[in-house]
Amino acid sequence: MEEVDHHAHERIKAQFDVEAMKVVWAGSKHNLDVADRMARLVASDPVFSKDNRTMLVRKDLFKNTLRKSLHAWKRINELRLTEEEASMLRLFVDEPAYVDLHWGMFVPAIRGQGTEEQQKKWLPLAYKMQIIGCYAQTELGHGSNVQGLETTATFDPKSDEFIIHSPTLTSSKWWPGGLGKVSTHAVVYARLITNGKDHGVHGFIVQLRSLDDHSPLSGIIVGDIGTKFGNGAYNTMDNGVLQFNHVRIPRDQMLMRVSQVTREGKYVQSDVPRQLVYGTMVYVRQTIVSDASKALSRAICIAVRYSAVRRQFGSQDGGPETQVIDFKTQQNRLFPLLASAYAFRFVGEWLKWLYTDVTQRLQASDFSTLPEAHACTAGLKSVTTSATADGIEECRKLCGGHGYLCSSGLPELFAVYVPACTYEGDNIVLLLQVARFLMKTVAQLGSGKQPVGTTAYFGRVQHLIQCKCDVRGADDWLNPSIIVEAFQARAVRLAVNCAQNISKAPSPEEGFLELSADLVEAAIAHCQLIIVSKFIEKLQQDIQGQGVKEQLQILCNIYALSLLHKHLGDFLVTGCITPKQGALANEQLRKLYSQVRPNAVALVDAFNYTDHYLGSTLGRYDGNVYPALYDEAWKDPLNDSVVPDGYQEYIRPLLKQKYKSSRL
Amino acid sequence: MEEVDHHAHERIKAQFDVEAMKVVWAGSKHNLDVADRMARLVASDPVFSKDNRTMLVRKDLFKNTLRKSLHAWKRINELRLTEEEASMLRLFVDEPAYVDLHWGMFVPAIRGQGTEEQQKKWLPLAYKMQIIGCYAQTELGHGSNVQGLETTATFDPKSDEFIIHSPTLTSSKWWPGGLGKVSTHAVVYARLITNGKDHGVHGFIVQLRSLDDHSPLSGIIVGDIGTKFGNGAYNTMDNGVLQFNHVRIPRDQMLMRVSQVTREGKYVQSDVPRQLVYGTMVYVRQTIVSDASKALSRAICIAVRYSAVRRQFGSQDGGPETQVIDFKTQQNRLFPLLASAYAFRFVGEWLKWLYTDVTQRLQASDFSTLPEAHACTAGLKSVTTSATADGIEECRKLCGGHGYLCSSGLPELFAVYVPACTYEGDNIVLLLQVARFLMKTVAQLGSGKQPVGTTAYFGRVQHLIQCKCDVRGADDWLNPSIIVEAFQARAVRLAVNCAQNISKAPSPEEGFLELSADLVEAAIAHCQLIIVSKFIEKLQQDIQGQGVKEQLQILCNIYALSLLHKHLGDFLVTGCITPKQGALANEQLRKLYSQVRPNAVALVDAFNYTDHYLGSTLGRYDGNVYPALYDEAWKDPLNDSVVPDGYQEYIRPLLKQKYKSSRL
Repeated sequence: MEEVDHHAHERIKAQFDVEAMKVVWAGSKHNLDVADRMARLVASDPVFSKDNRTMLVRKDLFKNTLRKSLHAWKRINELRLTEEEASMLRLFVDEPAYVDLHWGMFVPAIRGQGTEEQQKKWLPLAYKMQIIGCYAQTELGHGSNVQGLETTATFDPKSDEFIIHSPTLTSSKWWPGGLGKVSTHAVVYARLITNGKDHGVHGFIVQLRSLDDHSPLSGIIVGDIGTKFGNGAYNTMDNGVLQFNHVRIPRDQMLMRVSQVTREGKYVQSDVPRQLVYGTMVYVRQTIVSDASKALSRAICIAVRYSAVRRQFGSQDGGPETQVIDFKTQQNRLFPLLASAYAFRFVGEWLKWLYTDVTQRLQASDFSTLPEAHACTAGLKSVTTSATADGIEECRKLCGGHGYLCSSGLPELFAVYVPACTYEGDNIVLLLQVARFLMKTVAQLGSGKQPVGTTAYFGRVQHLIQCKCDVRGADDWLNPSIIVEAFQARAVRLAVNCAQNISKAPSPEEGFLELSADLVEAAIAHCQLIIVSKFIEKLQQDIQGQGVKEQLQILCNIYALSLLHKHLGDFLVTGCITPKQGALANEQLRKLYSQVRPNAVALVDAFNYTDHYLGSTLGRYDGNVYPALYDEAWKDPLNDSVVPDGYQEYIRPLLKQKYKSSRL
Repeated sequence: MEEVDHHAHERIKAQFDVEAMKVVWAGSKHNLDVADRMARLVASDPVFSKDNRTMLVRKDLFKNTLRKSLHAWKRINELRLTEEEASMLRLFVDEPAYVDLHWGMFVPAIRGQGTEEQQKKWLPLAYKMQIIGCYAQTELGHGSNVQGLETTATFDPKSDEFIIHSPTLTSSKWWPGGLGKVSTHAVVYARLITNGKDHGVHGFIVQLRSLDDHSPLSGIIVGDIGTKFGNGAYNTMDNGVLQFNHVRIPRDQMLMRVSQVTREGKYVQSDVPRQLVYGTMVYVRQTIVSDASKALSRAICIAVRYSAVRRQFGSQDGGPETQVIDFKTQQNRLFPLLASAYAFRFVGEWLKWLYTDVTQRLQASDFSTLPEAHACTAGLKSVTTSATADGIEECRKLCGGHGYLCSSGLPELFAVYVPACTYEGDNIVLLLQVARFLMKTVAQLGSGKQPVGTTAYFGRVQHLIQCKCDVRGADDWLNPSIIVEAFQARAVRLAVNCAQNISKAPSPEEGFLELSADLVEAAIAHCQLIIVSKFIEKLQQDIQGQGVKEQLQILCNIYALSLLHKHLGDFLVTGCITPKQGALANEQLRKLYSQVRPNAVALVDAFNYTDHYLGSTLGRYDGNVYPALYDEAWKDPLNDSVVPDGYQEYIRPLLKQKYKSSRL
């Protein structure tokens, strides 16, 4: 293909310094440099090519991922990459693989729940990948409700061993990534039973496969759970099924940092605070929020670029048709998603700070902020992943028919992303946890206990419950304090309404269950307030680069006002704003769309994604989409022959009337 | 597996006659009998097995579909099936294939646009499948905007032929189903050029492939456009790309019912009304609405059944956990979708009547209702397909993690369904057409011209624009006339607001473009009103069977009130209802959920779907999901060997430390 840049006329329109925006998006110059180097390293290495990924059968796809994983490990070692660089490199390889669970779940589980002795024994093996581990928690019959797991670990004092057993079909471990075909070891969660007493769910290190020939050890049935949603996508991962038939492990393979079983079979709690577990949860969910902004930004990058290339309708006198990005209906769907990608990026950044803060407090035995931090991360995980999953599919639809082709990259992006709505806590279950915390916060309001952190605004409940929004003209909706107060008032009023309705029920628990759909809405309102607030706080910081802050200001307002429009019922039903003010918000939103329009392509360029990482004919940096679509089509195996396999047997007999229609 | 019915305790709870409801769903006893017979015929025939469909590579998948298509044709002829039975049989084979386009687009195009002579020549060949045809309209660069197509058909008076040509890359035909590998002929849409004058887009019958050896004819480049979203799904279809290099066809292969080109190259319009084309559109879109109810009902059937089997949380004293269908958050998502499936079924039934009505009027040269019928079907196509696509994905999420496995059936159902949002008119483009019609209706209000059909309520604009909703208690929301008036008031007020805002713009066209996001919302409000009204009208008919009408009444109210809650902002911002009334609607909705709960499983049983048609481990009639999930897992090719292919090359070297970590 000739060298072109179909987006050149868009790029010169940008009213801000794109390079400076790249730094803001990456978090720092250092982050940008590392990401840029690793992205190019991966993109230029033929082993990491993504070609044909969506056309391979599962076995070939999986083998190819094994190949890439080993190659990544070789490169990491040859180039002596830092841990930061290594994890960036894995990110840009962009295929879910067993290594994600090894580094992301198995190692942290041992680090967090193992004693010093256990860490000394197992971590060096894991760090060198002499063993490969996974995290075997969920079962066929139990996902969200961890306390309901059925696998048992019964202590046998005679042999000083635990007997790991799957008593039912539904107790089969089911879903753990890396389990199906690769892992040699697993951290297995099972009910600890000593002296006939059930002590609840604990973690155990269990070897699954021989280190000599990879065959499953005696008493262990293990395999893959089958094909998952989408082409390529998560099918590169060997999510597994695992059953134990009275498998024995030494006592010292129970993870004993928080509680122990003695030689005699006595169950003992250590003085290590159990709350430490929540610190890890905050960490994991913070990475999920950060991943949400990555996934959404990839999708919106593709959709914005293609919307700038694609023309449809509106041709005057044979001139060029209108770029679809100029249609208000397209802007009305594209730009709130673009704003969301930025909003999620900044709230993710803030969550990273929160994790550090919580960790430091935990080390100083200060547990006071933990419930709030836990509720806030659970809620943000839920709200950002749901919006991202929906947003990717919306981006696909915004690309018209061509978004349905795998070569657009969007189908795979969607299919590989959606599990985030379910894993690490089902999104609705998590919102109910947030709601429970909010109800507790409301209940304690009279008690003198001050709400902290992201719930601090509940301290102003008296004001927020009766305040009137000050907006008189559309421009008033650009005032951050007006926006924040409207979102605070909505969140407080929804929560207080729920609390009042619950109090009418026969019991609080019955009330909570009955009102749970409303409670979910109150929880969402609280979480959206957090995201809006953190975006606004980000803008109060020093931000370098010509025009950068101005663009972010526009995006922040689009994010807030598009949410307000989407949830207008909430704001009106609670009387936070008037119908007239709602209409003014909408009017302001249209003005903001016009402001962001000339900057749209530059704002997705600021993500600094390589064509390799995007993997999309429609999202190419140079915008040369039609030749790319055309060339990709011919690569489909169905085009290997002009006359398709099956013609002789199944088409020719039809045309040659071997089967005559007797009636039609 | 042992014979069980895990849903037995649910089925005895049903408060209505399920067999009678089956008749209502099917439309008549006759329809039910035909569907039931055809579904069983397909389910019992091993050639139509769906096993492994999601695991096959494209070539094998496609060949298998060719096999099924031929087998279906054989069975149709052997059993001397009627046209109705044949199309039912194809429905239950449940794989998109070239035959769909042959029967659904190619044949109707010739029927509708061909002269009698042309019909006499081509239809017998098509009926016997001695030729196989497709419908080549969309191009790489043009989808929604048909008038922008670039392919040319230039009349050559010397040879009395048309020269079909693709002047650019973007003029390549792109997407037509059945084109890529199978069709011997196509109806090709191209710009007609005679004597240097462009007469716009017309249809031409073009032979593409040799009837002897299936090779493309001279000047024709044809192939498949590549892999599409999802496992199995639409990849059974050979959507194609097609380029013409000055291909000549005889003049009599232009479809000449509406306009002709004479031997001398003169362009002549016949006296056949061009509006006939819209009749066909009404027909096609009516089938799409009917398909929406089918797709959504399959998804909700799976989700309801699995939600009744799956238990999570809430165990008291070691007793069984709570069925997830008992959680209000689950009901709040499941039951509106269940109600939607029924609502779409009945509005589809009404559209079928509308098509007959329009056709009869057209034959009597009465074009008065056509614009309204056209707007109404365009809007219903848009609203029902969007809700169905979202609804299927929601059902998948409602099944938790297991919904992500292909064996749940939901990923394929989603992937195969979503194109409906784009084909036959992009959903947003269609809503703008509806909005344009509504604006015209508003503009004509003073003129004395009475709005007809589904827009008749605009005749009461003076009342609707200032009426007050009468609801005082939650039960008032069960009153159909209150519901209808609230929906009418919302629709009228949104439309009138738009018209007023447009009138402030420098020109109506600029105003329309600027306000288009609001116009889309007004169009949606109008379409939702139609669906609600038609559901209510259905209930005014005689409906047989104990308890059947009562159940439908509950579903109708759930449909209306859940929409009201979802779009609460619309109702409040236009002052159609008060915040208090909005809260009462929500309260009533919760009561309705409790009423539908004991009937939920029976209400999806009434769809009468076979396990073959559902194709879901989670949606099995007997509810025995866990053994089914487990058995399906082991069928994955990745489980062919215990130690995976790739172990020696890519896992063992890692474990055996051939690549030592130098730093980590």
